[in-house]
Amino acid sequence: MADTLDRETHRLISSDKVEGTTVYNPEGEKLGSIANVMIDKRSGKSEYAVMEFGGLFGLGSDQYPLPWDMLTYDTEVGGYVVNLSKEQLDGAPRYPREQMPAYDDAYGRSVYSHYGLTYPVY
Amino acid sequence: MADTLDRETHRLISSDKVEGTTVYNPEGEKLGSIANVMIDKRSGKSEYAVMEFGGLFGLGSDQYPLPWDMLTYDTEVGGYVVNLSKEQLDGAPRYPREQMPAYDDAYGRSVYSHYGLTYPVY
Repeated sequence: MADTLDRETHRLISSDKVEGTTVYNPEGEKLGSIANVMIDKRSGKSEYAVMEFGGLFGLGSDQYPLPWDMLTYDTEVGGYVVNLSKEQLDGAPRYPREQMPAYDDAYGRSVYSHYGLTYPVY
Repeated sequence: MADTLDRETHRLISSDKVEGTTVYNPEGEKLGSIANVMIDKRSGKSEYAVMEFGGLFGLGSDQYPLPWDMLTYDTEVGGYVVNLSKEQLDGAPRYPREQMPAYDDAYGRSVYSHYGLTYPVY
């Protein structure tokens, strides 16, 4: 049996555990945590990790959607690592927790574009 | 803006919304609901939907992991449809909520095998 409090195994993690997982920068500094994951209903693919920065960089409590592939899971620290600078976060797509946008293609394109990524075709 | 209470868009759904989504059989009868999703930490792929049957079939409150591809999202009913018979659920892998198994390869194989599916290689 795995530690049931962890709700995490060697390769898989429970959705209710992803929420709250710490996110670090490559220097190992804590940036914030994952508020929730946006999942494709049909394929089951996680497309965005939605981050909260908890006031770091003076960013307040807005939520920032990050394309999933920007995150790397680090088993050593038990969290995700993302290479994000203050500059990248200035003007990054964000929203108050209670005002989730529609996440339509136009929104997706704006998020990917901000981080210099190509919006995938599904 | 999407309905913020829904936390659901045309194609994506928030992880905290998947938890609780109703699961129907092909006849449109409510079977139960999704307790949580087991997600690959690295790829972000949802590998299992863990179902609770809420006493239907006299199955009690155990949790049943189902390979994600067994589920089909039905936008009309706003839930997942899965073709499951009482017979398939007899002897199906299950566990009490607070005793999540390790979800290692051996366990994964036993789940896939029970439903007549080939365990995928990652």
